[in-house]
Amino acid sequence: MTGPVAGPVTGPAPLRVGVVGVGMMGADHAVRLAGRAANATLVAVADPDVDRAERLASSFEGVRAFADPLELVADDGVDAVVIASPGFVHEEQVLACIAAGKHALCEKPLTMDAESSLRVVEAERAAGRHLVQVGFMRRFDPEYVAMKAMLDAGDLGRLLLVHNVHRNKTVPDGFLSEMIVRDSLVHEVDVCRWLFGEEIVEITVHSPAPTSEAADGVVDPQVAVFRMAGGGMATSEVFVKCGVGYEVRCEATGEHGNATVGLGSGVLVRSANRWGGSIPDDFRVRFAQAYDAEVQSWVDATRRGEVTGPTAWDGYAATVVCEAGMESLRTGSPMKVSLA
Amino acid sequence: MTGPVAGPVTGPAPLRVGVVGVGMMGADHAVRLAGRAANATLVAVADPDVDRAERLASSFEGVRAFADPLELVADDGVDAVVIASPGFVHEEQVLACIAAGKHALCEKPLTMDAESSLRVVEAERAAGRHLVQVGFMRRFDPEYVAMKAMLDAGDLGRLLLVHNVHRNKTVPDGFLSEMIVRDSLVHEVDVCRWLFGEEIVEITVHSPAPTSEAADGVVDPQVAVFRMAGGGMATSEVFVKCGVGYEVRCEATGEHGNATVGLGSGVLVRSANRWGGSIPDDFRVRFAQAYDAEVQSWVDATRRGEVTGPTAWDGYAATVVCEAGMESLRTGSPMKVSLA
Amino acid sequence: MTGPVAGPVTGPAPLRVGVVGVGMMGADHAVRLAGRAANATLVAVADPDVDRAERLASSFEGVRAFADPLELVADDGVDAVVIASPGFVHEEQVLACIAAGKHALCEKPLTMDAESSLRVVEAERAAGRHLVQVGFMRRFDPEYVAMKAMLDAGDLGRLLLVHNVHRNKTVPDGFLSEMIVRDSLVHEVDVCRWLFGEEIVEITVHSPAPTSEAADGVVDPQVAVFRMAGGGMATSEVFVKCGVGYEVRCEATGEHGNATVGLGSGVLVRSANRWGGSIPDDFRVRFAQAYDAEVQSWVDATRRGEVTGPTAWDGYAATVVCEAGMESLRTGSPMKVSLA
Amino acid sequence: MTGPVAGPVTGPAPLRVGVVGVGMMGADHAVRLAGRAANATLVAVADPDVDRAERLASSFEGVRAFADPLELVADDGVDAVVIASPGFVHEEQVLACIAAGKHALCEKPLTMDAESSLRVVEAERAAGRHLVQVGFMRRFDPEYVAMKAMLDAGDLGRLLLVHNVHRNKTVPDGFLSEMIVRDSLVHEVDVCRWLFGEEIVEITVHSPAPTSEAADGVVDPQVAVFRMAGGGMATSEVFVKCGVGYEVRCEATGEHGNATVGLGSGVLVRSANRWGGSIPDDFRVRFAQAYDAEVQSWVDATRRGEVTGPTAWDGYAATVVCEAGMESLRTGSPMKVSLA
Repeated sequence: MTGPVAGPVTGPAPLRVGVVGVGMMGADHAVRLAGRAANATLVAVADPDVDRAERLASSFEGVRAFADPLELVADDGVDAVVIASPGFVHEEQVLACIAAGKHALCEKPLTMDAESSLRVVEAERAAGRHLVQVGFMRRFDPEYVAMKAMLDAGDLGRLLLVHNVHRNKTVPDGFLSEMIVRDSLVHEVDVCRWLFGEEIVEITVHSPAPTSEAADGVVDPQVAVFRMAGGGMATSEVFVKCGVGYEVRCEATGEHGNATVGLGSGVLVRSANRWGGSIPDDFRVRFAQAYDAEVQSWVDATRRGEVTGPTAWDGYAATVVCEAGMESLRTGSPMKVSLA
Repeated sequence: MTGPVAGPVTGPAPLRVGVVGVGMMGADHAVRLAGRAANATLVAVADPDVDRAERLASSFEGVRAFADPLELVADDGVDAVVIASPGFVHEEQVLACIAAGKHALCEKPLTMDAESSLRVVEAERAAGRHLVQVGFMRRFDPEYVAMKAMLDAGDLGRLLLVHNVHRNKTVPDGFLSEMIVRDSLVHEVDVCRWLFGEEIVEITVHSPAPTSEAADGVVDPQVAVFRMAGGGMATSEVFVKCGVGYEVRCEATGEHGNATVGLGSGVLVRSANRWGGSIPDDFRVRFAQAYDAEVQSWVDATRRGEVTGPTAWDGYAATVVCEAGMESLRTGSPMKVSLA
Repeated sequence: MTGPVAGPVTGPAPLRVGVVGVGMMGADHAVRLAGRAANATLVAVADPDVDRAERLASSFEGVRAFADPLELVADDGVDAVVIASPGFVHEEQVLACIAAGKHALCEKPLTMDAESSLRVVEAERAAGRHLVQVGFMRRFDPEYVAMKAMLDAGDLGRLLLVHNVHRNKTVPDGFLSEMIVRDSLVHEVDVCRWLFGEEIVEITVHSPAPTSEAADGVVDPQVAVFRMAGGGMATSEVFVKCGVGYEVRCEATGEHGNATVGLGSGVLVRSANRWGGSIPDDFRVRFAQAYDAEVQSWVDATRRGEVTGPTAWDGYAATVVCEAGMESLRTGSPMKVSLA
Repeated sequence: MTGPVAGPVTGPAPLRVGVVGVGMMGADHAVRLAGRAANATLVAVADPDVDRAERLASSFEGVRAFADPLELVADDGVDAVVIASPGFVHEEQVLACIAAGKHALCEKPLTMDAESSLRVVEAERAAGRHLVQVGFMRRFDPEYVAMKAMLDAGDLGRLLLVHNVHRNKTVPDGFLSEMIVRDSLVHEVDVCRWLFGEEIVEITVHSPAPTSEAADGVVDPQVAVFRMAGGGMATSEVFVKCGVGYEVRCEATGEHGNATVGLGSGVLVRSANRWGGSIPDDFRVRFAQAYDAEVQSWVDATRRGEVTGPTAWDGYAATVVCEAGMESLRTGSPMKVSLA
């Protein structure tokens, strides 16, 4: 139940990963594994729609396509599996991974009901080790991670209340009231369990008058109230046709301060008569993403034999300007810049 | 002169990269190449301080240490080189890469003066192809990239003015006035050339009364004024002992609006009587970093045979809560949640 | 049920106002009436603690002190009354104002229970005209006023949900659970009635585990859920010992967008994939408060025969600098500035 | 050279004020004096366009109109004068006020050139006391006032640099380059003199390539560089056809931190690795403007015999809801709310 692992993990053998289910989410994961993940190799994709699987496979080099997800799971060339298929086939696929002793990253929901989810938990227990990770990716969002760390460090005192906002711009009309709970609110369920470090013991889902954009009979927005095992509480708005865009926010209120994420400004903290955020000590923190992107871009271009970033000319021009700048600093006068 | 390359770049052979100079920046790049970059393998590090090189190499598997950077450059097992050594040895090392026909990502400054930088440009021209990329990483920062895209799309009209703020919390006392130009202001030099898409034709570096924190004789802060080839202008504050933290901001003012980056809130745009930013359409944009971190974390843990993210139990518990939530939605009453 | 009245209201006779109850709030109102309100004169203050009333009265010129609030209400020299006494004497004092045909601005709560509040409503009905205004001052806050105007204009579509946060840094230990409802949450009660333009038809007040700062047996924080006559809903957190400072926020979610106030940044609107706020057309809007303060400060100083704002010298110095600036603009060179 | 005077200033005689020049700015001041300023009475307005003066006068009660500003200045019924006429008649009018021993609040610029401004300074010296205040109203803006207080308190260390942005949405085409200096930049001239507490000793006004919106031959935007007597420096952008709206920002950089105003979020401070703002201790600070507006609105309505704010019914309804809330708090159940 932790955030990203720090530090390098290297070695001779990259992890050979297969992706099961190549709709929007599965295709996204395939691109991520092939183009942005270190020490992993995308080796296979599977989808009952085998044409779709083949089209995706052919956009990479050396990736095989399967029509049968279970065949992919069983294949000797696959070390681990990302499951991005529809929820109703998750149980079978996850159980197959456990049976094969392979790690699986399974998109939420784990399965469609409590009984089947419990079967997965018990299969893993019988296997004697953890093999399944569920796709609650907010635990990996830099802002949520930073807020969780603050709470764990006690910076805000004991956690008392959480308020979540989860809004989609829109969803297809077939997205019914219960799916709003199971596919949307489920994220806030996990966020509250994770932030409090406690189970939820009571839930109320309110039905306000729906937006006129809602399909007939669909309750949208919804307001959920959670009570935690330790007595803390949480309120969550879920609104899947809000029309605005994708908005996810979370405010955690502790005994001595509160923190909000999802404002687009890092963790906003309020404590001791101040609101605001932090300023890093150095450029490695501020520009961590930029350095990662720079190096990945350079690796990718170099493998194609190209230079796509700032060139030697850019380096030369900057040097000439800086030389003129140093002269201006000495003399106090404007200096002309001339390039070769 | 572009941002990160979109889309996957895969194939059977990862790029074998060596890092020359393993001080703070070089070690950082080594960890990045080993643990976060796709399709690259860190194979070697070099440093005249061979102990330092060996210590770093031994923290990875299969990475060789060299005392002589030029030997690393020449090694057949190295496809491409990241140069993070001190600036005064850049010329020799970059020229060696060009001579060996190997791509190099060279930290700024390219070299110590205009004459030597021009020698690099000419060596590359003689080689007949681009091999050198200079480490102006702001061109890869998501905010700068988005602002540049806005300017290029004409959203803000023709670019008229730029104002930069570049502040370090502190620097060692030996960081002299001219280094503030060559090692700090050089980033703003590149930012202005890149944003305007034009060369700088005149530079003035002003010497305000220095902060009392400045070492004797050091001009800190400095205020630079650039005039661009097309008549646009830029002002830049550089302040290396500002005491606050690492602050880098850039405001670009066009004929019809302005954009600011570095506020910690994405690109802040002001136009048509509105200030603000954008809200993405969907979760793949909002949580792109989280998904990358989730998958990298899962890959790393899986290679160690561990599960460090949300477990099957977390998936089960969420399912139980959602089932109770759907029941509450139907009945309008609070529902107790009970886990196995 | 409107915001501030626009435009000037003048005439020969300023309103002669008496303030009943001169604790913190009453004293504040007295200073406001004497020093910042146009067309009003503070003429009397009353408090059973007559020493306190006299001390306050003597800090102004021509203000009388009363021990008996009802005597102040009855006094012929008093046109209208501000009631800032404890809630349990409000009924008697408001009824006295109505009986005397005098307007009253009564701090919340109107009275201590529904029965007595209804007696006030009926007394006013019997009097045949409105005389009582209740101190729900959020309706006059520029941000709330702007958000209400947006909602009324339909900019965000029909209002669906409201979420309020109301936090005090601390309160005395005698501030019991029910006072948190009656004295704090009452503001959110009014805000929701006002924003929706509807009555509340159901209320639930939840009791989360209290902060360890709470006095024994006091439920703090509290989470209230309102259901409106038209089916809309509202959630409100009230937390009177939050330790952080005074924080009041309100997010209103409509069918097509949402607006938040209390962030310290004007109304923050999210709609159509944008978040942000508005930029005024001109300086009269941006600096409205500054102009008011400037003129009030000048009036006050002038009545004392002083100049406390920018002097003729400041005007002269600015002119000299601008003349040099115009010369620099013509010549392109720096110009020295010399003052007489 | 101070901000608004704290505390009440009362007494039997309100200040009788005349306004000279009733264009946009003068009319605005007239409304302010009549409807929002305490202890002042608007008694007269003057304008060579006597129709305009009469129209404005007739919108108030008891206000006289003059065609000749000097006649207004000389009138025995006028205690003090606000001068909002065009700059080229300021000298004559201000000198008339000084001659009459009357206080004047004169809009900027004080006069059209240094020589005439100096004559005003000398006339005032000859009169033996200060009578003239110049309309540099940023010194009264709550954000600028707070930033100045921080600087004076030493919170940010010694002031080193200032950067100003001053943008108008648009101006008439007749607004020439020199007017941009004299009528726009003049505010930043005063801001820098005030913040540093020092005179400006050198000014450079740069001419970047103009926006295509600029009238022929007009330099817009402009970039000014100031050097202060103590060695501090300031950069200012002035852009009068920026198209965006009215934007005024100021960043002050001290030895230990920096503060920015004009972001619409109070003073944004960066120091000690934190960015952010302050949260007040109590509601009197947070809602100071709301209380002022509430009371002014109540005074205005009461003088018309109306109630325009929350009524007794609003007070009653809130009480009923709170009673139900207290019952819900006791029972833990939702409570219906029923109004009489």
